[in-house]
Amino acid sequence: MLRFGAYSPEVLHHLRWLQETLAPALKTVVEAMGGVNLTTIQSKAIQMGDECHNRNAAATMLFIKEILPQMVKCLSLTEISEIVGYLTKNDHFFLNLSMAACKCNLDAAADIEHSSIVTAMCRNGVEFGIRISGLGNRWIARPASRIEGLYFPGYGDEDACPDLGDSSITETYGLGGFAMAAAPAIVQFVGGAFQDALKHSREMGRITVGVNPAITMPSLEFAPIPTGIDVWRVIAKGILPVINTGIAHKEAGIGQIGAGIVKAPWECFAAAAEELARRLE
Amino acid sequence: MLRFGAYSPEVLHHLRWLQETLAPALKTVVEAMGGVNLTTIQSKAIQMGDECHNRNAAATMLFIKEILPQMVKCLSLTEISEIVGYLTKNDHFFLNLSMAACKCNLDAAADIEHSSIVTAMCRNGVEFGIRISGLGNRWIARPASRIEGLYFPGYGDEDACPDLGDSSITETYGLGGFAMAAAPAIVQFVGGAFQDALKHSREMGRITVGVNPAITMPSLEFAPIPTGIDVWRVIAKGILPVINTGIAHKEAGIGQIGAGIVKAPWECFAAAAEELARRLE
Repeated sequence: MLRFGAYSPEVLHHLRWLQETLAPALKTVVEAMGGVNLTTIQSKAIQMGDECHNRNAAATMLFIKEILPQMVKCLSLTEISEIVGYLTKNDHFFLNLSMAACKCNLDAAADIEHSSIVTAMCRNGVEFGIRISGLGNRWIARPASRIEGLYFPGYGDEDACPDLGDSSITETYGLGGFAMAAAPAIVQFVGGAFQDALKHSREMGRITVGVNPAITMPSLEFAPIPTGIDVWRVIAKGILPVINTGIAHKEAGIGQIGAGIVKAPWECFAAAAEELARRLE
Repeated sequence: MLRFGAYSPEVLHHLRWLQETLAPALKTVVEAMGGVNLTTIQSKAIQMGDECHNRNAAATMLFIKEILPQMVKCLSLTEISEIVGYLTKNDHFFLNLSMAACKCNLDAAADIEHSSIVTAMCRNGVEFGIRISGLGNRWIARPASRIEGLYFPGYGDEDACPDLGDSSITETYGLGGFAMAAAPAIVQFVGGAFQDALKHSREMGRITVGVNPAITMPSLEFAPIPTGIDVWRVIAKGILPVINTGIAHKEAGIGQIGAGIVKAPWECFAAAAEELARRLE
C-alpha cells in the first residue's frame, strides 16, 4: 500500500519509479496533446459509477483511453509496456489527478471578502482543518473524527488512525461523498446501502451554495452535483459534510486497513462561523 | 454508421480492415492470453453504468485494459497504433463480444425437452423470431414491432424501419433492457427516465425462471440480473420482454437513425405456448 504512511523498500522503489519514469513520460504525452481535460473525465466517470474519490475505476480507464493514442506516437514500446502495466493494474490512479483538478477549481474561489465558502478540507490523522474563502489562507483545525467503515481482513476499530489525508478536497469540490448517488458500487467498499448513497447526495445539496452542471448524477435523474459548501448553511441546517475515505493503521508504516464514511467535525464550522461573524461586525 | 444496412465505400473499406487487420491481431493477442473472460467484463461493466447492449462504454474500456499489456508484447507499434486508434473511438465495440458471449451461454440451454425457456430473440426488420429450448432449432416468427425512441437530428417515425437486428440476444440472456436499472445513463439514449429503467429490470424478473448471480445491479441494491425468459410466465403475467435497440432507416444504405425501446410481440409467445402445450399432450 503506497498511501497512508507505508514506507517499505518496495514503496520507496515505486515512488522513485513514479518520479523518474512515469512523470516525465506522462509530461511528454500530455504536453504533446496540449493538455487533458480532467473535468470531462470526471463528468464521464460519474456516468459510470465513480465518485472520483474512493472509486476511480472508470476515470482511470478514461484517462488511459484518452492518452493512449498519443502514447503510441511519443513513447517506445518498452516505455508503453511499463506504463500500461502500471496504469491497468491501479484502479485508483485517477484519484491523484482528480484531487489536483478539484484543488485548482477550488483555488479560483479563494480569498473573496466575507465569502463563507469552504475552499479546502484536509486531515492529518490528528486534526481536521478547513479553509474558508473569506478568511484567507489560514486553516481552522479541530481534532479529527473516527471513521465508520469496513476493515480489510484482520483489522478492526482498535487498529485505526483517526481521519487522515488530503483527498477530502474532492468532497470540497462536490465529488466523493457528495456525488455518492452516482456510485452505488462504492457502498460495497465504504459500507451502507445504495439508498444511503442517494440520501448523502441529496443532503449535501442542502449545505452548498450551488451545483455544478458539468457533472450530473444519473440515478438522481441527472441532478448536477452539489458544490460550494457554505459555513452558514452547515450551521443553520446542522448538516455536516460527508466524506468517503480510506482508513489508515495508527502505526506508521502499515498503511491502509479499510475504508468508510466520516463527517467533518462540527467544531471547525462553528469556529469558522464565529470568525466570519467577527469580521462582518 | 457501420450497422443497419449501410454499405458506402467507407463502410466496405472498414469491414475489410476489421477482417484483415483487426481480427488476426486480436486473435494473436487473445490466444496468447489463453482467452478473455467476457462474463467478467460484463459483470464489471454492469457496475459501471453499461447494460452491455446499447451502452458498452465501460465494457469496451475494460476490454482494452484487459488486452493492452499483451498487445504491447505481441504486436508492433504500428499495429498497436492502428488498433488503439479504432478501439478508443468506438464505445460500442464490446457489443460484438457481448452478443457472442450471450449466444454461447444461451446455446447451453437449448434443446431440453419440454423446456419453455427462450434461447434466442432476433429481428430482421420484417419479422421478430424467438427460439424455445423445448422446440428445437425452429424459429417462431411474427411481424416485427415499431420502436418507441429518440431520433438523431433530421429523422423521425416516418423514416424508421420496424425492429431490426440480432442484438436482442443480450436481452435473452438478461442484459440490455433486462439490466437497465444498472445503466441509468442509457435513458438519455433510448428515452425515458431513471425510474423507468428500475421498473423495466424489476418487471423482467417476473417473467424469468431465475437470476444470474455473476452479474448484479448496484442501483437495485446489487440484485442479480433476471435470466431465462419463460414462455409460460410471459403468458401468465402478460408481461413482454423489453429490448433496448437501435432504430434503422427503412431505406437500405442509410443506417442507424435513432435508438429506443421495443417489446417482443405477444403473438410469438402465444404461438410458442400453443406449440409447447401440443407437445405436452
